[in-house]
Amino acid sequence: MKKLEELQEMISVAVDELAFPLNPVELYEPIKYILSIGGKRMRPALLLMACDLFDGDIQLALPPALAIEVFHNFTLMHDDIMDKAPLRRGQTTVHEKWNQNVAILSGDVMLIEGYKLMMQVPNHKLRQILDVFNNTAVAVCEGQQFDMEFEERQSVSIAEYIEMIRLKTAVVLGGALKIGALIGGATTKDAELLCQFGEYLGVAFQLQDDILDVYGDPEKFGKQVGGDILSNKKTYLLIKAQELAKGNSAQQLIDLLAAKSFDNDEKVKAVTGIYDQLDVRRSADAEMQEYAEKAYKALDAINLPEDRKQYLRDFADGLLVREY
Amino acid sequence: MKKLEELQEMISVAVDELAFPLNPVELYEPIKYILSIGGKRMRPALLLMACDLFDGDIQLALPPALAIEVFHNFTLMHDDIMDKAPLRRGQTTVHEKWNQNVAILSGDVMLIEGYKLMMQVPNHKLRQILDVFNNTAVAVCEGQQFDMEFEERQSVSIAEYIEMIRLKTAVVLGGALKIGALIGGATTKDAELLCQFGEYLGVAFQLQDDILDVYGDPEKFGKQVGGDILSNKKTYLLIKAQELAKGNSAQQLIDLLAAKSFDNDEKVKAVTGIYDQLDVRRSADAEMQEYAEKAYKALDAINLPEDRKQYLRDFADGLLVREY
Repeated sequence: MKKLEELQEMISVAVDELAFPLNPVELYEPIKYILSIGGKRMRPALLLMACDLFDGDIQLALPPALAIEVFHNFTLMHDDIMDKAPLRRGQTTVHEKWNQNVAILSGDVMLIEGYKLMMQVPNHKLRQILDVFNNTAVAVCEGQQFDMEFEERQSVSIAEYIEMIRLKTAVVLGGALKIGALIGGATTKDAELLCQFGEYLGVAFQLQDDILDVYGDPEKFGKQVGGDILSNKKTYLLIKAQELAKGNSAQQLIDLLAAKSFDNDEKVKAVTGIYDQLDVRRSADAEMQEYAEKAYKALDAINLPEDRKQYLRDFADGLLVREY
Repeated sequence: MKKLEELQEMISVAVDELAFPLNPVELYEPIKYILSIGGKRMRPALLLMACDLFDGDIQLALPPALAIEVFHNFTLMHDDIMDKAPLRRGQTTVHEKWNQNVAILSGDVMLIEGYKLMMQVPNHKLRQILDVFNNTAVAVCEGQQFDMEFEERQSVSIAEYIEMIRLKTAVVLGGALKIGALIGGATTKDAELLCQFGEYLGVAFQLQDDILDVYGDPEKFGKQVGGDILSNKKTYLLIKAQELAKGNSAQQLIDLLAAKSFDNDEKVKAVTGIYDQLDVRRSADAEMQEYAEKAYKALDAINLPEDRKQYLRDFADGLLVREY
């Protein structure tokens, strides 16, 4: 088994070597640009890892892995327009560096390029793999749409929130693993189990992200504490707090969310105070744990040698840091 | 052979029956909306026609035909954002009726739904058909990008302009015919010839459109005469005039294009005067004729009974109205 870092490095090299036409310049330059500004290449590395788990030829999995990375960056390019984001990974976003029309159209062509790369698989696996890719791609769009709708809504349920993060971020992890497994020669059943593992793990990871935003060590996780609180983002913690808060704390929460001008530190402190009072962190931890266990359960059922399963467990453990 | 109108009607019925999920509402409603506001369903009808030409089962060609229509409407949805168009076929555009983010994301999902429909073909034809679809889709994006770039540029050559209209509008016609032919059982060679026929005819048709904008009978063609002139659109006529104009008329043309305030009728009259003086209509007619002849030549080489070829010739003649 190759180490995850090796696989990420393989992807980085292959991404750099991806060739696109020179013209029209404003169609293809932004694609090279967004792909060049990095990211951890986690999704394509997972695809290669899944292939490797089943003793498949990693070289054969490289084009579909690149397809997943190109697809992922297409979603980032379009999401950044929708979120009016000025920066992505510390660099100017495409719609800011060029303009919005360029970002729309370059994104469109990236989705098509994703399909072209995904089609570089053996004929007898083509339909099955494209079906997974289609379902993954639709899920990501649905997740993004729910995410935008939730921003406008007064109340969102925990179930709706979890379904949103599943669609928006977890399904791609599952899809990448499934495609890699299929290329690696896994049975449909094992590929499906690995897909579930990835999906559940993805949900757990996203819940952890919500917790870390408030309770994480900023030194350790490199993020500003309370960013979600300051932007009124409907995270698991906020939704749970809205659900549980009664009387005074309910009104206090409403006021904090409605306040037009506030001191950042004070707002973070006050909202965190309500979270602590309602013990929403414990609820979030429990929910995260539940999804982690679902992931491990799916993993247990896969027909793979124990050392391979241990590799996956170690990977999951690395992702879900429990001390923060 | 079924009549074109019958095929268009078949498509209309099938488009109405297309089912999409209910949620997220703002992702799928716009798709149903844009598909419902009509259009002539020409591209999917051509796909069915090509299948019928080779005695294929039209029912088998229906999902790919719908794929082409869904794809075409995806490009309209995104183009309308880029062009800031308030209306499409007399109805409010998606980005106006909902908002821009909805139009971006619904468009994205339409492209994916296009792939899902296009995949509903027999396994042994899947890769070949998807290859055509990929190439078609990329070409349309490239054409749209060139079109936007040309608007910003001082000068565009005739060759660049023709390549742009080929990519933006003609390739889809060729692609639709090719896919239909392949489903109908045509040889790769005949499918390719029919593709060329469609592409050349598409270029000729677009050139005719440029001519009709200035010289067409508004009663007959239902369009405001001179719309392209008023918006300084770089059509074949304008590019050719810019190429040929010398001295006084060159300066007059520059002034007309630069004028910030003008009487509409006077501008149309003045620019048309320069066109007449330089005889650009004759150049455009000749260019259109050249592409029509290339189309007929491709058609002649197809291995089909003479009555089928006549059907295609009649279709082309209907498209290229010579008296205006």
